[in-house]
Amino acid sequence: MKQSELFTKTRREAPKDEVSKNAELLIRAGYIHKEMAGAYDFLPLGLRVLNKIVGIIREEMNVLGGQEVYMTALQDRTSWEATDRWDEKKVDIWFKTKLQNETELGLAFTHEEPLTSLMKDHVRSYKDLPSSIYQFQNKFRNETRAKSGILRGREFLMKDMYSFNVDEETHNDFYEKAKIAYKIIYDRLGIGGDTIITFSSGGTFSKYSHEFQTLCEAGEDIVYVDMEKKLAVNREVLNDEVLNDLGLKKENLKECKAIEVGNIFSLGTKFSSALGLNFKDKTGISKPVIMGCYGIGPTRVMGTIAEIWSDDKGLVWPESVAPFSIHLVALFGADGKVEKVASELYRHLSSKGIEVLYDDRQCSAGEKFSDADLIGIPWRYVVSSKTLEADAVEVKDRKTGNVSMKKIQSL
Amino acid sequence: MKQSELFTKTRREAPKDEVSKNAELLIRAGYIHKEMAGAYDFLPLGLRVLNKIVGIIREEMNVLGGQEVYMTALQDRTSWEATDRWDEKKVDIWFKTKLQNETELGLAFTHEEPLTSLMKDHVRSYKDLPSSIYQFQNKFRNETRAKSGILRGREFLMKDMYSFNVDEETHNDFYEKAKIAYKIIYDRLGIGGDTIITFSSGGTFSKYSHEFQTLCEAGEDIVYVDMEKKLAVNREVLNDEVLNDLGLKKENLKECKAIEVGNIFSLGTKFSSALGLNFKDKTGISKPVIMGCYGIGPTRVMGTIAEIWSDDKGLVWPESVAPFSIHLVALFGADGKVEKVASELYRHLSSKGIEVLYDDRQCSAGEKFSDADLIGIPWRYVVSSKTLEADAVEVKDRKTGNVSMKKIQSL
Repeated sequence: MKQSELFTKTRREAPKDEVSKNAELLIRAGYIHKEMAGAYDFLPLGLRVLNKIVGIIREEMNVLGGQEVYMTALQDRTSWEATDRWDEKKVDIWFKTKLQNETELGLAFTHEEPLTSLMKDHVRSYKDLPSSIYQFQNKFRNETRAKSGILRGREFLMKDMYSFNVDEETHNDFYEKAKIAYKIIYDRLGIGGDTIITFSSGGTFSKYSHEFQTLCEAGEDIVYVDMEKKLAVNREVLNDEVLNDLGLKKENLKECKAIEVGNIFSLGTKFSSALGLNFKDKTGISKPVIMGCYGIGPTRVMGTIAEIWSDDKGLVWPESVAPFSIHLVALFGADGKVEKVASELYRHLSSKGIEVLYDDRQCSAGEKFSDADLIGIPWRYVVSSKTLEADAVEVKDRKTGNVSMKKIQSL
Repeated sequence: MKQSELFTKTRREAPKDEVSKNAELLIRAGYIHKEMAGAYDFLPLGLRVLNKIVGIIREEMNVLGGQEVYMTALQDRTSWEATDRWDEKKVDIWFKTKLQNETELGLAFTHEEPLTSLMKDHVRSYKDLPSSIYQFQNKFRNETRAKSGILRGREFLMKDMYSFNVDEETHNDFYEKAKIAYKIIYDRLGIGGDTIITFSSGGTFSKYSHEFQTLCEAGEDIVYVDMEKKLAVNREVLNDEVLNDLGLKKENLKECKAIEVGNIFSLGTKFSSALGLNFKDKTGISKPVIMGCYGIGPTRVMGTIAEIWSDDKGLVWPESVAPFSIHLVALFGADGKVEKVASELYRHLSSKGIEVLYDDRQCSAGEKFSDADLIGIPWRYVVSSKTLEADAVEVKDRKTGNVSMKKIQSL
C-alpha cells in the first residue's frame, strides 16, 4: 500500500485522557481511534494486525477440530435465568437494553447459555459428540474502570470456544490439547516467552482452571511465578495445598504483574444440566453433556503485544502480526531516479506476495524515519540517491536497530 | 469437510414462530439459528456463505480504493446530538444502554457521526482527500416488526462505506463508480438479474439517492419498475416531474414487491458541517468535506438469495456464495469399495482446492438425497456400487436437476 493513500496520519500526542501505553502508541501511530473509554475503532493498520492475530488463532482452533460460528450479541433472558446469570446483582457487567415493547434484552458478555441452548437442536446421542465450536465475536462488558486501552474493553473482540464431550476422560483429553494449542498460539504471536500458564480456581467441576498470563507492568493481575518451571498460580490458589499439588515452593515464587491473555475452564455439567443439554449414551441412558470453555481476546492480545514489543520510538511488531513486512521508504531526490527505482521495487516486492507499505509521501527524511519507527514494521528499506550509488537499499531491523546494505538485484 | 463431523443437523420443521421463507429454509438446513425475532446466529454452513458474500463485496470495495476499518457499536451522545439524531423522538430505532455511572450510550444503527468525527484527526488539507472508508460491522436497530428472517435484523451485518471528497464533481465521479461496483456485486452474488436500480428521494444535497431493489414477493418495499429499461422509482418519487426527468412513462411501470439490498446516498455537507470536518483547499480556504454513504447488508443479501434461489426441496445456492462447491454423497455398500473410492475422491478434490462437503454418514440414500437438496450445494456427486460399475460418479446440477455420469479418472 502507498502511504500517501493511507488515510490515517501519525500524531505526536495521544488524547489527553488516554493513560495506557498500548492505546497511546496505537493511537499516535494511527492503528486505533478512541471512541470512548473502553471502546476503540480499528483503523486500516490496526485492522491488519487484528486480522493477523485472528488468523493465527483460527488456524489453531481448526487444528483442534473446532467449527466456526457467529452468534448474536443480543440476548433474551430465558437461558440466562436458567443459570441464574441474568440478575445484575449476580453479574455486574451486563449492558442491558430494551425492545420497543419494553422487553429487556442483554448484550452478551460470554456465550455459554445461548450456545448450550442452540446445541439442544443438534445433539441427540453420543454419536453427535464430541464437538468443539468457536467464534470471533464482539463482547460487551460494562466495566466500571476501563483505563487500560485495548487491554480492557467495554466492547472487545473475543475468540470463545466451547467443547462438548460425553465424559470426563474425553473432555480432559481435549482440554490438554487446547492447552497445547494455546501455547502454540502465544509462541506464534510473539509473546510466548513472557506468557506463563497459571493455575486458578476451578469451580465445582474441576480443581483448577488455567489462565495464560503475560508478564507485563501494565497488567491488572498479580501472579506468583516460578520462573524456572515457567509455572504460576494466581492469588486465589496461593496456598500450601495447591503449591504442594503443583510441586512449587513459596520461596521460589516471584510476585509479578501480568495480563491475562487467555483462560480455559472445565465447566462440567453446570450449563448442560441447567439448560437440559443431554445425550443418550451407548446404553440409551440420558446424560448431561460435559463442557469446557476456552477464551482469548484478540484485541487484548494486540494491546499486550503493543505493551511488550515497543520502545521509546514506537511499536516493534513481531513479523507474524505486523501490518506489513517491509516499510519501503523513498527519499526523493531532484532527478526522479529514486522515485523510479522505489516504485519498481514496490511493484516487484508486492508481486512476490510481500506486504509492503511504500512511503511515497513528499515530506522530510526525518519525518519518514520517525513515522517508520512509530509504526513499527519489522524491516525498513530505505532507497535514496546515496543507496543507489551502491545499487542497494539500506535495510534496518526495527527490533535490533541493525543496519545493512542489500543489493537491489538480490531482492 | 466430512458431514459426519459437521455439528449441525437438518430438520423437518422450522420453529413455529418463524414465518419467513428465508429463515425457515436456512434454519431447517442448519445454516442459522434463531436467537429471537430479528437476531440469528450463523452456524458453520451459514458463516461460510456469509463470508463468501463479504469476500465479494470486500473485493469490489477495494477496487474502488476503499480502506477497511472496524468501528465500535457503543456510542456516546456527543456527535449524535450535533446532528440531532440522538433523541429517540427523531430516530426511533435506537437501542440505548447505560454505563454503571448512568451515562446513556447507544448502539450504532449507522456510522456517519462517529466516522465523520474520527476523520477530523486525519483530514487537514485537500491533499488528504479523496478517501473512502468502509467496514463490515454489526448494526443494531430496534425494529418494531422483525418477521422477515434475516432480511430485517435487529442485529445484522452491514457493509457501510463513506466517501470524502473536496467538491461535487469528484464526489459525483466516485458516486457513479460506486453505482457500477454495486451492479457488479449483485451480478457476482447471483441476484443481478432481479436487482433493479431504483430512484429514491435525495434529501437536501442531491435530487436523488439510489436503492438497489431485488424483485421478490418476500420484499417489504414497493417499487415501480420499467422492466425494459431495468429502472425503477420508489413511492416517494413516483410523480410526473421525476418520471419526466428519468424518461419513464407511468403506463410502462409495474408495481412490484422488492427487497432493498443496497442504497447509496449523497450526503453533501450535512455531517461535515454539523461536526466540523473541514479541509483547506488549494487557496487556503477552509471548506466542509463532501460526503457520500454506500450500504449493503450481507446478511440481508444472504436472505434475499435464499428467497430467490430456492425451490420446494430446499436451497439452490449460486456457485459464488455456496458453502461448498460439491456435495459428495457416498452410498455405502457391504464391501467397503464405495467408502474407499469416495474417501479417495474427497481427498483428491480437496487437494485441488475444491470445497467439498463429503456425506460420509451412515444413513439411508433417501435421507442423504433430501438433505443434499435442502442444503443446496450446486453439484451433487453420488458414488455408489452402481456408479462404480461404470467407474463413474453421478453428477446432479442442483439448479436444473440435470443428471449425468462422469468418469472418476476425469475428475
